[in-house]
Amino acid sequence: MLKKTKKQQLNYVLVCPLRPVERFRDLHPNEVADLFLAAQRVGTAVEKHFQGTSLTFSVQDGPEAGQTVKHVHIHVLPRKAGDFRRNDSIYDELQKHDKEKEDSPALWRSEEEMAAEAAALRGYFQ
Amino acid sequence: MLKKTKKQQLNYVLVCPLRPVERFRDLHPNEVADLFLAAQRVGTAVEKHFQGTSLTFSVQDGPEAGQTVKHVHIHVLPRKAGDFRRNDSIYDELQKHDKEKEDSPALWRSEEEMAAEAAALRGYFQ
Repeated sequence: MLKKTKKQQLNYVLVCPLRPVERFRDLHPNEVADLFLAAQRVGTAVEKHFQGTSLTFSVQDGPEAGQTVKHVHIHVLPRKAGDFRRNDSIYDELQKHDKEKEDSPALWRSEEEMAAEAAALRGYFQ
Repeated sequence: MLKKTKKQQLNYVLVCPLRPVERFRDLHPNEVADLFLAAQRVGTAVEKHFQGTSLTFSVQDGPEAGQTVKHVHIHVLPRKAGDFRRNDSIYDELQKHDKEKEDSPALWRSEEEMAAEAAALRGYFQ
């Protein structure tokens, strides 16, 4: 699943299990394995596609960890030198992002832009 | 592996694969499954032990993601309401923590304190 991001923001991808569960502990062993094997494959693809040199994998497992959608998911973020002033500002960005509700639709990428990106990424898995 | 933290800091645990590899992509499928199944068990234990209500799982996969030790590992952090002023300051704390080199040993927990905590946590896996 592509994360709906604003233009000019770092692109990243969410990986989630087929069966929706709220907490990571609720996943069965085969689902844990599938989920992170998928994240591994997705990480390799997005790092290459977005010319990253590292990856951040993050699971906000529960509301006190910043989870805003009650469906376990992994944030997979391609990283490169200098992408954020302080390295971990990326997490502030993730957090802020989830809370933005009042801004202009013009700031966001269009469905067409996202579809094109999804098509490009899909190529890595065929 | 218990993370060597300062007194008064949030406690957390690192989970790492038996075979040291630098990047997450280098892990074999069975190692990915083992690693995250272990993280799932560890998460349940530390959330309970430290009276958390959520968990943060984070992998800094490569130097541009903040990785400072060339051995893949997962940070497993019990979270609770109000633990950080801004939710994701926890990542700044992780990052800062890895870079502190000049401060006083008195600020750090002793080997004995860490051994006691390790023994308490070990109880969850027996």
